Formats: sequence, structure tokens, C-alpha cells
Amino acid sequence: MNAAITATHTGGIAEALARRLPAGRVVTDPDIVAGLSHDQAVWAPAGSPAAVVRARSTDEVRTVVRTCLEYGVPLVARGAGTGLSGGANAIEAGVVLTLDAMDRILEVDELERLAVVQPGVVNDDLRAHVATHGLWYPPDPASSQWSTIGGNVSTNAGGLCCVKYGVTRDYVLGLEVVTGTGEIVRLGRRTAKGVAGYDLMGLIVGAEGTLGVVTEVTVRLRPTPPIGVTVAGYFDSVVRAGDAVRATAAAALRPAALELVDRHCLRAVDAWKNMGLSAEADVVLLARFDDGGPAGDDGARRMLECFRAAGATWAERSETEAEAEMLFEARRLAFPALERLGPVLTEDVCVPIAAVPEMLARIDRTADKHRITIANIAHVGDGNLHPLLVTEPGDEEARTRARAAFDDIIADALELGGTVTGEHGVGLLKRTGLTQELSPAVLDMHRAVKRALDPAGILNPGKIFEA
Amino acid sequence: MNAAITATHTGGIAEALARRLPAGRVVTDPDIVAGLSHDQAVWAPAGSPAAVVRARSTDEVRTVVRTCLEYGVPLVARGAGTGLSGGANAIEAGVVLTLDAMDRILEVDELERLAVVQPGVVNDDLRAHVATHGLWYPPDPASSQWSTIGGNVSTNAGGLCCVKYGVTRDYVLGLEVVTGTGEIVRLGRRTAKGVAGYDLMGLIVGAEGTLGVVTEVTVRLRPTPPIGVTVAGYFDSVVRAGDAVRATAAAALRPAALELVDRHCLRAVDAWKNMGLSAEADVVLLARFDDGGPAGDDGARRMLECFRAAGATWAERSETEAEAEMLFEARRLAFPALERLGPVLTEDVCVPIAAVPEMLARIDRTADKHRITIANIAHVGDGNLHPLLVTEPGDEEARTRARAAFDDIIADALELGGTVTGEHGVGLLKRTGLTQELSPAVLDMHRAVKRALDPAGILNPGKIFEA
Repeated sequence: MNAAITATHTGGIAEALARRLPAGRVVTDPDIVAGLSHDQAVWAPAGSPAAVVRARSTDEVRTVVRTCLEYGVPLVARGAGTGLSGGANAIEAGVVLTLDAMDRILEVDELERLAVVQPGVVNDDLRAHVATHGLWYPPDPASSQWSTIGGNVSTNAGGLCCVKYGVTRDYVLGLEVVTGTGEIVRLGRRTAKGVAGYDLMGLIVGAEGTLGVVTEVTVRLRPTPPIGVTVAGYFDSVVRAGDAVRATAAAALRPAALELVDRHCLRAVDAWKNMGLSAEADVVLLARFDDGGPAGDDGARRMLECFRAAGATWAERSETEAEAEMLFEARRLAFPALERLGPVLTEDVCVPIAAVPEMLARIDRTADKHRITIANIAHVGDGNLHPLLVTEPGDEEARTRARAAFDDIIADALELGGTVTGEHGVGLLKRTGLTQELSPAVLDMHRAVKRALDPAGILNPGKIFEA
Repeated sequence: MNAAITATHTGGIAEALARRLPAGRVVTDPDIVAGLSHDQAVWAPAGSPAAVVRARSTDEVRTVVRTCLEYGVPLVARGAGTGLSGGANAIEAGVVLTLDAMDRILEVDELERLAVVQPGVVNDDLRAHVATHGLWYPPDPASSQWSTIGGNVSTNAGGLCCVKYGVTRDYVLGLEVVTGTGEIVRLGRRTAKGVAGYDLMGLIVGAEGTLGVVTEVTVRLRPTPPIGVTVAGYFDSVVRAGDAVRATAAAALRPAALELVDRHCLRAVDAWKNMGLSAEADVVLLARFDDGGPAGDDGARRMLECFRAAGATWAERSETEAEAEMLFEARRLAFPALERLGPVLTEDVCVPIAAVPEMLARIDRTADKHRITIANIAHVGDGNLHPLLVTEPGDEEARTRARAAFDDIIADALELGGTVTGEHGVGLLKRTGLTQELSPAVLDMHRAVKRALDPAGILNPGKIFEA
């Protein structure tokens, strides 16, 4: 469909947009255009856009959508481009609409515990700002230093604290959206509860810009939690670490984070920063309790018991915040440390907690079978694994093997009752996986909803499922 | 549309259903048929169905849907019929499909903290069953003794503990649904996280059976919380009570319930049960903290401080569980106590916390203006008010005045930034209100989604919005 659409009209859309928008909105610098044409899923294909627009208001967004409708040109809306599935990759001869300049925090209401923000506000900037009001915005994707709330909403981003606090969807209360027919609408509400009509707001969250362009977000906030208590456990196998995770679930513990870092990551971090972790552990589990006071102490104590009973070679509570920070720093460094070794293809499957040890074991076997390195970081308390497929730079044949491993991991996750994407979204990389996870009837429902809300098919067509 | 549909084919659908389903599924007893033709919104219109079916399996539900498709007859699926908006009311010459006999708890998984249930499982039965596993299903609508999980899902039911734990939507992980095209589909998942495709599951939750018939529900569970601590405050005006609620929000307290009962309710309860509350208080606030240990004690202590600082005439923590239970019993008795006085039209608006005192004051003025009694119970911690419009039995003129008051309350809630329905749903009673709350463009999106997922328009047409 894209090809048919774009063939007719693209000639003049850049000029039309330049004419209809204030000066400077249409980006022409080739380097900037190239940078805005893809997200971080570098293995996913990206086209060359006919025009890139940096909008500064909802009205400007509507002008862009209406112009795309008029010209029959597809539109990809994007935030910071930190996505890992290709959802924000440009469509050939389409328009890219970047919302990063719509970055104002419009309101913080302490009593109702909500904030109203433009989509380009960076996650960490929102957190820092609301902290000055004694409030907290929980969703904490690893990209929080750079990623925007609009992007977080469009991918329904997760993060470390989901295990206790839920995902982005759980903190979106209302949205302003420019629809596929060029209307500005408000969905959701500002009240704590509400059931007035269909949850169209929830439908937009995680739709990766295929059902509407988010131009304003009302988020729920929580009181700032107490300073946490960190617990670490070292294990000599993923199976033992997996047993420990099962034990913590069975003990009904509610950590605010429960992360796993495997030997490949530990070695890569040590090779870079010489933290000495890989000499001591094959797998590290890191947990954090933010209940405060005796409840936090009790959670930490019981977590240590679970770690030790499962055969941890070492397990202790951090004595200082600095020590705790060092351990979480190792977790955060895992991804960049691996990237030093070569291009990293990031997987994102989620399986039932009980299946975590088996899934990790299968990932090891997949690495052997395809002769590539697969490291693992995981939001393991949620069963959300991020196998990181590392290949030598420039080794095309290794990339092919990595793609085969990627497919095997998806198949294994589905066989174990899991999903092809826990938090990164479908984008382009998981489109095939989605057809394996969902039945044809459910995919038909997706297409029907897409046609209903984007009848012209201009909103990020071809992402999530084939246009 | 219904009229056109039903005119052509209804002659034979009861016979066709009797032929295609096992014996006994088509209900013919006139009293039972009448009882299954409406919910508890007695003021909403209900038609006489052409057939009533009590299904016992998903396949039977599909047979009913496909037969309705074939005959072009509208279908109303229902649970226990405890709804308060007319959402389950029969459509003239349509089919009523009751799911109350699909009442099996299929699975409880302690490790993944989930249960899989049929839609006819009664809320309290699910809670009692999972409690034997040390687990808890939080959503607690006042109807929990009778209402079913399927009905709770279809209305996205709330309850007392929403203020801390969220609503039904927050506990639905997966659904099996028979679609408007007669397909059996699975939506959602069993894993803790997942973003594979559109949130169609969330779209079905709260859609009041207009987008699909729910035949199985996978719910999230939580560990059983500790026994709670109850705090009560008596106030001599709703404004003072409202100030107390604002203060608790500003103090970032997280009670597991925060309820308001006004003087009309207290008097009605006393007139029935002689609990002596109305002599002591004009308004009662009831709060519960289930953190356990020192955290719960601390919450209770700070709540008392808020109550006293706001001018409570009396405020104490319950010394015994029996005393606490007595106070919550008074809260629960408010509705039946009022029903003794005459037919009760239950409102269900939700406003920002800051607007609660003003909304309560406006409700009092509305009662005066229309010369009717309006009592208030409220999930006040959420800003969710249930003004109860009481009229003399048989007084038709009073009913007309009550309807006018109902409309005024809706208009006031919207003016104060609220919603026309906090937790009861739109059904028939709030259809007009919905058109006041949502813009024409958003209503168009509703219709487009409805057409997309129920192209023949057979699923509960005319509920939520005009067919």
C-alpha cells in the first residue's frame, strides 16, 4: 500500500509542509535528517524520508497529519529514537515528525498526583521535576536519560521497577492525540477512576504511533518512595539463580527491582571497568526494597534467605548506598560494555517466572548452536529477558547466524508460554514473531481497528504488522 | 438499526437455538426470563427477549453468537445482573445470554500469582478460593457477594480498595472472547509484562459486552495483605470532611479504603439498625490501612492527625476488629437502608479530589432545588461519589424530579473536571452524559471501533452509545 500511496503525490509534500508551517520546522540538514530516520534497532530497515518536521505545537502536528492525508504520504512520529524494534524507522518517501521540541512540563498537581506534559519531555527530566514536588514518576526504562514520555507511551515502556510498580500504561491517565483523520481529541481523564466509554486511551498506549500521534500526556504520580535497601546474590549457574527467583516469588516478596546479570555481561563489564565481578560470580541477582523502615529490612532479610537457600555462593545486603549504586552501575554498564565488543541485537522476550531457568538454559544452547555470544540481562522478577546477541563488527555471516538465533529465542519463548516482546514493542523486528504469537483472527482484529482509526493508512503503516 | 435487523428474522431464533444447543440451555420459564431481562438499574428501559440462553461452554457461546449473526438478532450477554446502568438490559426481540452457569475456577497458579476463571464465577467465591492459596483478588465492588467476574470485567468494576489497589482492569491479564464475527480468540497473556500488539484485551474490559463476549478471564492476584487498621472520623459538615480528604491526599497517605457516609445514610441506617451514628456525626469518614506492622500504625496515626486538623468532632482508631467491622457494616448498610425508604436511583460520578467538597455542596443544592432526598456514599479517596436519589414509592412526579436532579449532578461533575461514570459504566442511563463528556470526534472513534469489531452490530447494540 505504501508504494502505491507514495508513488502519486510525494513530489510536493516537503514544499507544502514548509509553506504551511512556521519557518524552521522542516528539517533539511542531511546529517540531522539521517539521524532522525531510524531508532536504535540498527538491524531493522529504514527508508529515506521525503521530509522531516520538528513540530512545536499540537496545531502544527495536526497540520502535518492533514498534509499527509492530503498528499497520501505515510507519517512516522518519533521521540528520542531510543526504540529497539524499528518502530520509529522512517518509511521511504514518507514524513518523519519529531516531537522532541515539544518538551514542556505543563502542570504538576500535587493534590491529584498528576502531571501534564508534552510528548518530548525526557523521562529523567520529568522525574527530576516532579521530585521537587515530593512526587515520583515510576516507569524507568533503561533509556530514561534520553527517551521521551511520548516514546515511552507509544511503546508502553517498561523498566526496572515494573516488577512492583507496573509499566507506562499504568501511569497514563489521559492523552491528547491527533487522529488518523486529522482531529485533535482528548482521551482518558484527570480523575482517579472513570469508565466513560471504550478505553481508547489504553489502545493508543503501545500502538507505536499507528493509531494516532500523541501530543500531550497526563501521567499519574506517586509519593516519592523511601530510599531503598539493596541485596545482591552471586550464583554459579543460571539454574540456581532461577531457583532463587522462583523462591522469592513463592515467598510473596515484593521487591522494587529484581535484576539478573549473567557471566557474559560481568566479563564484558570487567574487561572495561575492572570491577572484579566475573571472578566471583557466574550470575548476579540484584534486588531492591523501597518499603522503608522495618518492612524494607524484612524484605531484604527474606530475599537473602531465598538467595542462600537456592545455593548462592555469596549473598549480602549492601551496607552503604554507594555499594548498592556500584552494583546497579554494573547492571547499567552491561549493555554499553557489550557494545564495545561489536553490534548488539537486543532481544526482549517475557516468560512465566517458572520458565525463567529453562529459558536461560535454552538461550545458552541457542548460542552454542549458532556459534555466537548471547549475554543476558533480565528484569528477571517479571520474567522479562534481554538476551543480547553480540557479533564481530563487519561479520555479515555472524549477523545471519544471529538472526537465526533471534528466531530460535522467539520460538522458545512462545513454547514456554511467553511473549515475543515484554517491553520493547513489535516495530519491525518482531512483526514475524507477532504472527507466531497471535492467531489469524486476532491479527484480523488488529487490522480492523487500524482501518477504523486510520482509514487512510498514513500512520506509521507497516509497523507492528504488514500494511 | 436494531428494528431493521430484528424485523426480518426473529421468528425462528428461539427454535434454532434450542435445536443447536444441548437440552435445557434455552430458558423458557417466564419468571426466570423476566428476571434475566434487566439489571439493577430499574429505571432504565428493558425489552422482552426472543430467547434466553444459559450457556455452559465457550463453544455454546460461539453457537449463540453465530446464530445471532445468521438471524441478524442482537445479543445481550450478562452475568449476575447487578449492574446499575442498564448495560445488561434485554433488547426487544433479542437474545439474552447468561453466563452465570460458566462458574468454574479453572486454575490458580501460586508462583505466577494468577487465576483462570470462567466468567460466571462470583467475585467473593474467587476471593475465598484464592485465599486458601494465600492469595488475594483485590477488586471489591459492593456487589461482590453476587456479581460475577465476567460482569466485573465488562464494566471494569471498581470498589472500596481501588484507592490503593486499582480497578478490575488492573487485574485482568488475559481474556478468551467470542468476537462479533463468531470467532474464539485469546487476548492478553499469562506473563507479567507484554506489548505484543494492540491492547485489545484492555479494549474489551469495560466495553459492556458491545465488542465481544468474555468466556474466560485470567486475573492477576496479590499476596494476602495483613489484617488492616481502621480509623474513623466524625465531621459536622461535608466541607470539613472534604478538607480532611484533601489533607490526607496532600500528606501522601495510601489508605486501602477511604469512604464517606453522609447524614442521610447515617439516619437511614439508624432508623433501621439503631446504631446511633447520626446523633454523633453529620458525615463519617472511614479509612483502612493494610500495610501491616509499624507502617500501618503510622498511616493510621497520620490519618487521625489529618482528621483532627480538619476539625473532626471525633476521630479514633478502632481498638478491635469487631469495632472496625461495625463501622464498615454501617457503610455497607447505607444502600439497603435507603432502599427501605423508596426506589433509589444510584449516581456514579467521579471528580478530582480537590473538587469533592464543592461537588458535595452542589449535590445538596440540587436536592433542595428538585425537592428530593439525595444521600451520599462515596469512595471519597478516589473522588468517586454515589449520590443516591431517593423517591417515595409510586410517586411518578418525584421520579421526574429525580431524573432532572440526576442530569444536574452529571452537569456539575463535568463542570468540575469529572466524569459521568466512575465505576458503574454507561449502559443506558449515562448515554446522554457520555455525549456531554466526550467530543463528537471521540464518539466517532467509538462507533468506528464498534463497527470494526462487531460489523453486524449484534453485540449489545444501543448500550454506551446509540446504535
